[in-house]
Amino acid sequence: MQKHLLTTKSLSKEEIDLILQTAENFEPYARKEKRGDQLKGKVLGALFYEPSTRTRLSFETAMIRLGGDVVSVADIGTTSMGVKGETVADTAKVISNFVDIVAIRHPEVGSAEEFANNASVPVINAGDGTNQHPSQALLDLFTIKKELGKIDGLTVGFSGDLKFGRTANSLAYLLANYDVKLKFIAPKALPMKQKVKDDLNEKGVNFEETEDFNAGLSGLDVLYVSRVQKDRFTDMNEYEKLKDVYVLDRKLVEEKSPDMLILHALPRVNEIAKDVDDLKGAAYFRQVQNGVTMRMALLSMLCNL
Amino acid sequence: MQKHLLTTKSLSKEEIDLILQTAENFEPYARKEKRGDQLKGKVLGALFYEPSTRTRLSFETAMIRLGGDVVSVADIGTTSMGVKGETVADTAKVISNFVDIVAIRHPEVGSAEEFANNASVPVINAGDGTNQHPSQALLDLFTIKKELGKIDGLTVGFSGDLKFGRTANSLAYLLANYDVKLKFIAPKALPMKQKVKDDLNEKGVNFEETEDFNAGLSGLDVLYVSRVQKDRFTDMNEYEKLKDVYVLDRKLVEEKSPDMLILHALPRVNEIAKDVDDLKGAAYFRQVQNGVTMRMALLSMLCNL
Amino acid sequence: MQKHLLTTKSLSKEEIDLILQTAENFEPYARKEKRGDQLKGKVLGALFYEPSTRTRLSFETAMIRLGGDVVSVADIGTTSMGVKGETVADTAKVISNFVDIVAIRHPEVGSAEEFANNASVPVINAGDGTNQHPSQALLDLFTIKKELGKIDGLTVGFSGDLKFGRTANSLAYLLANYDVKLKFIAPKALPMKQKVKDDLNEKGVNFEETEDFNAGLSGLDVLYVSRVQKDRFTDMNEYEKLKDVYVLDRKLVEEKSPDMLILHALPRVNEIAKDVDDLKGAAYFRQVQNGVTMRMALLSMLCNL
Repeated sequence: MQKHLLTTKSLSKEEIDLILQTAENFEPYARKEKRGDQLKGKVLGALFYEPSTRTRLSFETAMIRLGGDVVSVADIGTTSMGVKGETVADTAKVISNFVDIVAIRHPEVGSAEEFANNASVPVINAGDGTNQHPSQALLDLFTIKKELGKIDGLTVGFSGDLKFGRTANSLAYLLANYDVKLKFIAPKALPMKQKVKDDLNEKGVNFEETEDFNAGLSGLDVLYVSRVQKDRFTDMNEYEKLKDVYVLDRKLVEEKSPDMLILHALPRVNEIAKDVDDLKGAAYFRQVQNGVTMRMALLSMLCNL
Repeated sequence: MQKHLLTTKSLSKEEIDLILQTAENFEPYARKEKRGDQLKGKVLGALFYEPSTRTRLSFETAMIRLGGDVVSVADIGTTSMGVKGETVADTAKVISNFVDIVAIRHPEVGSAEEFANNASVPVINAGDGTNQHPSQALLDLFTIKKELGKIDGLTVGFSGDLKFGRTANSLAYLLANYDVKLKFIAPKALPMKQKVKDDLNEKGVNFEETEDFNAGLSGLDVLYVSRVQKDRFTDMNEYEKLKDVYVLDRKLVEEKSPDMLILHALPRVNEIAKDVDDLKGAAYFRQVQNGVTMRMALLSMLCNL
Repeated sequence: MQKHLLTTKSLSKEEIDLILQTAENFEPYARKEKRGDQLKGKVLGALFYEPSTRTRLSFETAMIRLGGDVVSVADIGTTSMGVKGETVADTAKVISNFVDIVAIRHPEVGSAEEFANNASVPVINAGDGTNQHPSQALLDLFTIKKELGKIDGLTVGFSGDLKFGRTANSLAYLLANYDVKLKFIAPKALPMKQKVKDDLNEKGVNFEETEDFNAGLSGLDVLYVSRVQKDRFTDMNEYEKLKDVYVLDRKLVEEKSPDMLILHALPRVNEIAKDVDDLKGAAYFRQVQNGVTMRMALLSMLCNL
């Protein structure tokens, strides 16, 4: 196991499988059926340089329910690190004196790696700009395996903003280790990053691209939905054309792939209609509990290196 | 006992008396004389969509001193739930995966109920706009009973802004279950809400109204003070006339009802002069300790349903 | 031992030595080698009316690693105490009901003392405007003693903004109890406060002043670096002349006092060049760990009065 968790790109299939397997053991703790003390005496530093509630509370809950403690910075924008202009490297050296492990979210690509390079404790990248969010991708993969019983052989679609979203990136790199077919369904303005596609090609991953949301939904085992945000577009005509197209509703699901598993990193705004929530495949709220499970596994594995 | 605590309106006299009685058992813990472990293994989610220090720390302290843990969002305005536009219903489904019980403050009337309807864990309304703040009203009632030894037979005045304040509402509904006389002393622009008065009438509660602050103070056993805020007025002449009238000072107390119990949910600005603080009946700082006591009782009762 | 820690000015040499000695016992806990339960059942209120991450997390970490708990207000500017205009005195009376000990940072000189005068629990001043930051000064002194093995006989320089900085103040008062020579190296616009110099003169402390940064560095055993901030100057010509002069780099250190111990309360912006970091005397990151050690000692001593 690596010292830090900064990207899904560098994880081997063996490491991924070990993480998925380890996570299974933590399910009773995440379901609040058991309380553990595996992390007793350990302190997590939850450093969120960007607003986030879901991810921060998920990490904090995971830590606490295994007997650990937490110190948090919920919005570093207003703290000394933001205001007074300290470098990420200095912050890493300072924080290493306080905590046993760090989960960091930061708006700049590469910031988590820079932090890790200067820290003396394990670091989990909880989102660095448009780059990576590995713990989210691992919980997504864990959800797929738990819901469908397998990963090999699946056709996985990714819809919405694949250019700026970091979770689709991170999950694509994980899936590249399995025998899967990927389908990127994105507006012309927001395609999957070229770098990711080059890497997938190099690994020989079978993937296709389409801008046609409705057509793209056919034949999917899994659909991973991302939001399409207005402020990502430079051409407002393009946005106006698309804004109501990339909305998944119950009718569409039932027409195209009625049994598909539907995932979303949340928060959901209107890209999934409320009438989808009751479908058997709508797993986005169950995903949240898997998030606690996965973070329990990751915190434990990295703390007990 | 109900699953959630959303309003004082739906509590029966039996439930109220049970809560008051249960709270008594927690006094040594709130006074820091004993440390408990009644809530060991339980996690409170303190979700404050509006700034609050007093109420949040009161809940957190209550949880911690009974061995529980806390995850907090101190100002959700700046977090993903505020910024990214997630519905209260979705937030409730997400947060239910993290914690065992929720205390939520939110600017919109009905938000706590909406949250509870979508949560799988107990929810305490810690203030929803101008509507209700039931844990505050219960600690107020607990303070009255503790300080005066009884509730039946008392004349209780409410002064200040009774239109927008939620604590006066909540307390009035509790008192409606006892043999009391209520007096609403409020500027013409800020009277007790009509709906509350209708409900009190229906229950046969004896109450009167006056705009005359000084006269209203006579014959009271208890005075519950609320602030009169400038930004609540549309007519500034009206405000100018009233701003110095609704100020309780020592001289007034001694003239009108020297033995009355004086309560305030705090923070106090200038509606109670500092020279009142030393009076025997000035109970507003003792109220704070009762707040920890009451929240210990409520957290325990709801967690161990 | 005093009930509160509000200023270094009132500490006797005996008290300072006792604190330094006590701190030594906590080093294994701060180094994460041991976990204690000396503060089990105690709750720290970390009240930060000004942005701070370093100091707040240092206190929280110290508390947690000795088995205590924490409730925090990370930016009181946006909370009820800021927004709704409660006095510091009222806040102190309220907070005393929640916690066993308080660490408070507040922008106004004297606010910590005002808080302590109204609190029923011990209070540590974690920075009150330009006045004092005693726990920082104690950890600075602890670092000097630990790194150099002694305090008596040393020549200690203070550079940068000595007018608005509170840490230099606080450390100067501590050092005044020992046989030291002090050198204040500051721009004409930002000299050490007259009141401090008067107090040092009265105690017979040997000190000198200079505006010449380079010359001032000669003959030092210790250099305590503070930032020079643009917004402190009224004369921008003066600022332009000085901004690049008060920058410590490796070449300067090696020329002037190659073996000197270099301290900084952090965050560092550009007043110490990165090439200084690898020098043996660059102790500013080790200082951070001593901060946890010192806060463990202070919390323990004040909680167990």
